[in-house]
Amino acid sequence: MTRSTATTRLRQETDEIPDRVAMQVADRRDDFERAGAALRRHDPQMLITVARGSSDHAATYLKYLSEMTAGRPVASIGPSISSVYGRSLRLDGAACLSVSQSGRSPDLTAFQDMARQAGALTLALVNTSPSPLSTGADIAMDIGAGPEHAVAASKSYVCSLSAMAALVAAWTQTASLGTAVSRTPDRLRNALSCDWSALVPAASNARSIYVIGRGPGFAIAQEAALKFKETCQIHAESYSAAEVMHGPIQLAANGLVALVFLSRDEARPGLLDAVARLAGSGARVFVADPLGEVASDGRAITPLPCIAAPDPLLDPLCQITSFYRFIEHLAGALGFDPDAPQLLNKVTETL
Amino acid sequence: MTRSTATTRLRQETDEIPDRVAMQVADRRDDFERAGAALRRHDPQMLITVARGSSDHAATYLKYLSEMTAGRPVASIGPSISSVYGRSLRLDGAACLSVSQSGRSPDLTAFQDMARQAGALTLALVNTSPSPLSTGADIAMDIGAGPEHAVAASKSYVCSLSAMAALVAAWTQTASLGTAVSRTPDRLRNALSCDWSALVPAASNARSIYVIGRGPGFAIAQEAALKFKETCQIHAESYSAAEVMHGPIQLAANGLVALVFLSRDEARPGLLDAVARLAGSGARVFVADPLGEVASDGRAITPLPCIAAPDPLLDPLCQITSFYRFIEHLAGALGFDPDAPQLLNKVTETL
Repeated sequence: MTRSTATTRLRQETDEIPDRVAMQVADRRDDFERAGAALRRHDPQMLITVARGSSDHAATYLKYLSEMTAGRPVASIGPSISSVYGRSLRLDGAACLSVSQSGRSPDLTAFQDMARQAGALTLALVNTSPSPLSTGADIAMDIGAGPEHAVAASKSYVCSLSAMAALVAAWTQTASLGTAVSRTPDRLRNALSCDWSALVPAASNARSIYVIGRGPGFAIAQEAALKFKETCQIHAESYSAAEVMHGPIQLAANGLVALVFLSRDEARPGLLDAVARLAGSGARVFVADPLGEVASDGRAITPLPCIAAPDPLLDPLCQITSFYRFIEHLAGALGFDPDAPQLLNKVTETL
Repeated sequence: MTRSTATTRLRQETDEIPDRVAMQVADRRDDFERAGAALRRHDPQMLITVARGSSDHAATYLKYLSEMTAGRPVASIGPSISSVYGRSLRLDGAACLSVSQSGRSPDLTAFQDMARQAGALTLALVNTSPSPLSTGADIAMDIGAGPEHAVAASKSYVCSLSAMAALVAAWTQTASLGTAVSRTPDRLRNALSCDWSALVPAASNARSIYVIGRGPGFAIAQEAALKFKETCQIHAESYSAAEVMHGPIQLAANGLVALVFLSRDEARPGLLDAVARLAGSGARVFVADPLGEVASDGRAITPLPCIAAPDPLLDPLCQITSFYRFIEHLAGALGFDPDAPQLLNKVTETL
């Protein structure tokens, strides 16, 4: 339970994020162009995604990118529909994207097989190829994150997001987004230096944490909440800024800690309203703002340093990279070894 | 904060559940038949749902019913896509179901308008008609739950589930499911008598609670977790039995309390495995099993009495009804008035 080495694998792999995204930009561009062209030809009425854990949080990012940029609705489907319940869906006119680091989860592979037989164009996004998932897909893409040994995903998650942005840029022929992806590695280097230690004491003593985002930022809120649990045994939960104003805000009365991933886009006013209402209800609120405009109120609201990406849609990549550095630090401060969670293994083969 | 009356509105409205479902079966059948026939004519390639809070948890139930019974994928879309981001989706060949108790959330109405213009068949499921949502839909359905004054939904939630089951039965012409819905009110009466007080001491002292289900049972896990928060200020989070085996199980090391909604269907072995692994990892696990087969192990596993519905797909209606009685009891034991949460109003108009 205590740390045995000065540098954890989680720290090493987080530090690799900028270089791995840069290599992806240099080496994998043709793969995403090819997949984007296939999506244009197939012209799916909808996308469906299948994934688990961090890969499923990455799929949430694709959902918002697709709905906001391509106008196609995205359904996240539990692979249990085929692996547990033995059902087939009607998927003519759909495209199915499977996301898996290992590419060898049997339930995802079975789902992908069902989807292709049901008429969907199948795309697999993996970090291991060849793998059963990549060889079984109509189109396979490798995120090129390199070997990941830490139990907690970090570079594979960010490389999944950059791959999805490159894919959507190619699909919708949005040159500005494609260019922005290629300029992101430098910003990720800066994001590694953002010091979020102001959050350490509050998080260490928190009974509960909410991680809040909206749109593409909700995808990293999901990922950050999982990391609080798996590396620090802290109960954190992700919320969209819209949903938290319903029943969930009741926990603010209990000294809740909230981490808000602020956006620069149309969601910004609603997120700022959530910051104010959470702070006014008793929560301690920490805000990662790419614009750096949110100021401390000396009490409830604390800004965290944050790097703006070359495009607002890519801000989440910088925010989660700063977060990964923070969570490794927090785990150490709490006496946990983030590379050796008590109850976890790297590959969970779920049925 | 302390209770002022012997009988809360939450309790009164929970007690009405069986009669309200019985009235829905008697009075609303034609509405669901008409909507089901429209779905058969339109033959959507996919459904999309828009809803917030408890209504969105009901939409999760429809998702599993549609995917398991009709074979059509279901995408849950945040109304923010149109209300915040100002985007339109391409929805030809889709059907859009909006779910709202009040029928007057401006963001849902705006989304529904966009969906109709984008080519979708629009259906609205409301508890207030006429309302902006019902008058703006191609097909409106009233769940007939009657006036609901408690801040926390209860009868409107169960009536939404029974309406969705009746709708899917009509759509897919599954006569057995339709008949099962009509026989459910008697089981709901029995469900009101299930005594879950064994869970009160553990929940009262819990730092965190996981509520676990799978498939249609995941919809009520979402709803129960929200109720722990809004009526008792307890941090509860819902998990699919598949996802909890990844990082989230780490919290079991902290004396987690887990409430598992067990199924009778194909998901049962996986859920039983989750019960065993959570208990083996240090969690205290309470199990609502419609088959009544799970026994106490004298330590970590405690069964809760549970009523089997006339069809396994309807078990969640009985389980959540027993839960609503329990949560009202727990709120009182903790000194909260579930009708007057500190920070909430009945209608939250989100943009």
